[in-house]
Amino acid sequence: MEATIRTLAEKARAASLKIATLETAIKDTALKRLAELLSEHKDKILEANAKDLSEGEANGLSQALIDRLRFTPERIEAMAEGVRQVISLPDPVGETIEESIRPNGLRLVKRRVPIGVIGIIYESRPNVTVDCAVLCLKSGNACILRGGKEAFHSNTVLASIIQEALSESGIPGEAVQLIPTTNREALNVLLTLDDLVHCIIPRGGEGLIRFVAENSRIPVIKHYKGICNLYVDKDADLDLAETIVENAKCQRPGVCNAAENLFIHKDVAPSFLPKVARLLTSQGVALRLDEKAAAHVKDLDIPYSSATEEDFHEEFLDLIFSVKEVDDLESAIDAVNTYGSGHSDAIITANATNAETFLSAVDTSTVYWNASTRFTDGFEFGLGAEIGISTDRLHARGPMGLRELCTYKFIVYGDGQIK
Amino acid sequence: MEATIRTLAEKARAASLKIATLETAIKDTALKRLAELLSEHKDKILEANAKDLSEGEANGLSQALIDRLRFTPERIEAMAEGVRQVISLPDPVGETIEESIRPNGLRLVKRRVPIGVIGIIYESRPNVTVDCAVLCLKSGNACILRGGKEAFHSNTVLASIIQEALSESGIPGEAVQLIPTTNREALNVLLTLDDLVHCIIPRGGEGLIRFVAENSRIPVIKHYKGICNLYVDKDADLDLAETIVENAKCQRPGVCNAAENLFIHKDVAPSFLPKVARLLTSQGVALRLDEKAAAHVKDLDIPYSSATEEDFHEEFLDLIFSVKEVDDLESAIDAVNTYGSGHSDAIITANATNAETFLSAVDTSTVYWNASTRFTDGFEFGLGAEIGISTDRLHARGPMGLRELCTYKFIVYGDGQIK
Repeated sequence: MEATIRTLAEKARAASLKIATLETAIKDTALKRLAELLSEHKDKILEANAKDLSEGEANGLSQALIDRLRFTPERIEAMAEGVRQVISLPDPVGETIEESIRPNGLRLVKRRVPIGVIGIIYESRPNVTVDCAVLCLKSGNACILRGGKEAFHSNTVLASIIQEALSESGIPGEAVQLIPTTNREALNVLLTLDDLVHCIIPRGGEGLIRFVAENSRIPVIKHYKGICNLYVDKDADLDLAETIVENAKCQRPGVCNAAENLFIHKDVAPSFLPKVARLLTSQGVALRLDEKAAAHVKDLDIPYSSATEEDFHEEFLDLIFSVKEVDDLESAIDAVNTYGSGHSDAIITANATNAETFLSAVDTSTVYWNASTRFTDGFEFGLGAEIGISTDRLHARGPMGLRELCTYKFIVYGDGQIK
Repeated sequence: MEATIRTLAEKARAASLKIATLETAIKDTALKRLAELLSEHKDKILEANAKDLSEGEANGLSQALIDRLRFTPERIEAMAEGVRQVISLPDPVGETIEESIRPNGLRLVKRRVPIGVIGIIYESRPNVTVDCAVLCLKSGNACILRGGKEAFHSNTVLASIIQEALSESGIPGEAVQLIPTTNREALNVLLTLDDLVHCIIPRGGEGLIRFVAENSRIPVIKHYKGICNLYVDKDADLDLAETIVENAKCQRPGVCNAAENLFIHKDVAPSFLPKVARLLTSQGVALRLDEKAAAHVKDLDIPYSSATEEDFHEEFLDLIFSVKEVDDLESAIDAVNTYGSGHSDAIITANATNAETFLSAVDTSTVYWNASTRFTDGFEFGLGAEIGISTDRLHARGPMGLRELCTYKFIVYGDGQIK
């Protein structure tokens, strides 16, 4: 196993040096061909996917997992359309980030270049195979893909189609490698190859991400959970607050940028809490209120349960909402920094001083003033596409697009300078 | 031990949230006070240092290590002067990196902010305690310092002086923590605290860096070895090549940006090799030549030995030089990418096309055209100071200054936007 995975990584590394300097037009030609081939090979993809689905059903996968696993002709078309969208994005490779002339005449150019070889570890959805390969290719990186075992047949066909598109366009197909086994040992080996692989991006549940972070010798960029918090300040416009709270919690509760906790200033809690509690429960939200928050609704006909300390640390990804009354802005900031996961947080207030204090003191990737946390997303941020949302601080924080799949190098032009 | 180190890290984390938003003037006041206190407490520092030196001598440390460990009144003044220089550097915290207005009216500001808590693991030189604490403070980060056991008494006094300067300036002294034991177990515990510590920077020998990278759950930025390469192209100005080769190899062979390998195009090897070999050997350089390179000097009175494959992978940090003849530009690029450590490499040529090919294809942090590799350094690059030179690709590559000790956050200004 060790030799197989090392050989595969060596091939990816060799290919990465070749594709790092490819012209944009060549990369875009390969992407265009890939979009065509996905449509052309639709039946082959559906056939492989059918195998995964029947094995998944035999193995008792949940309906939610089966649904994530399933391709339909429409989903394949959507995947091809996603590839076409990446063609239109600007190529980040070669961009000049900074430039200076030093007193000794050396000209220093800090230029954006691909990272090299990126390992992507993901779970059930097979379209991730195409999404990630395409973003890596456009940013000049080779990639090693390790998908979930449930999607193995689908992933294998997709990887061969990607390699076909690359080869037809004169690009080494080895730039996109799929780990050819579902054996867990292969992942363990991959995570030790720090001489060949330069970055690992795990996409999936908490258990997977924790396993990868704890076992990798290769730098990892974590795309971790989103415990997103809303704070309704004493100076909030309460109608606006209600709209934002409803949207952040209810519009799509299963995604990472949906809100999990609500903190309300004690001065507005008596008026705001009954109103927003009625609205949220009418939408099917199960409220978990701390003692002080509960005091404002306990005599009304609004269902709720008592919040525990653990509730505020939980990513529900569901119509469940933990609510706490806070004494002041500082307590709200402390609460966000204590319970949040550094993903997305928002203050709702008409008070600019309070807003700026919150925006500055909250330690998170994205902090909003008077807007829903639901906007944390590569498309919404204008990146065009995203490989994920980093909850780490090094290299990339928040939505990661093509530029974040790059590093830089210093190019120094001299005319004989010595020290 | 586990509880001690966790408590220390919790204090650093709490302090980091406070110092993240400090005004520049307050940080600079603390730095000014630190420079004064280092002078005022000179005797106390020398006294602690004397203990380290006598213990070191008793334990049989080499003279080189003893010298690295030793403070003198002049070295303490130089350290204080280094602190004053950081005062004059621009504060990176709060800088706007990018700004945009989205179609829905959201204003997105990508702002530079401190990373949080940085762990720095280093070896014998005690001035690193002050250098690192100062750079972390100026960039708004708390730090946890873990110096070498040889310098423990010196480091302890320096840390208490730093904390005194912070406290006198109204900054929590807990922002700078020194691990209060030389027990190796303390390091093992620190490397698991990924909920409190955000980045580890190991500075020291290969063994230390490898240990940290393999055992840390916290992201590590490696400052690894420098196997720097020079390539003399067929179109090189050979006088200029000679000057650069001599400088990169001989001016200070013990530093990471000194050259270790020389590759020479076969067309110029017959004329260039005898000349440069004579010059280098006259400077005391021990040449290790591959077979083809040796052919050009074997009948002359120039001493050399045969190069092994391992020689080209070695960071000698000494007046030893591995030399290989190459057939063409492509072979030179392959050699650099094979043997180099991604630190600094140079091409010497008058041919702009060859230069651009090399600059683009060589996968390294800093690549030079017609200049010595000896310029890879934070001061030479205009960063003002450096915490090290990253040989990693994520977050920071090459010289790391104050900006590279920061991450960013997205601040989003809305007026009620929902999705």
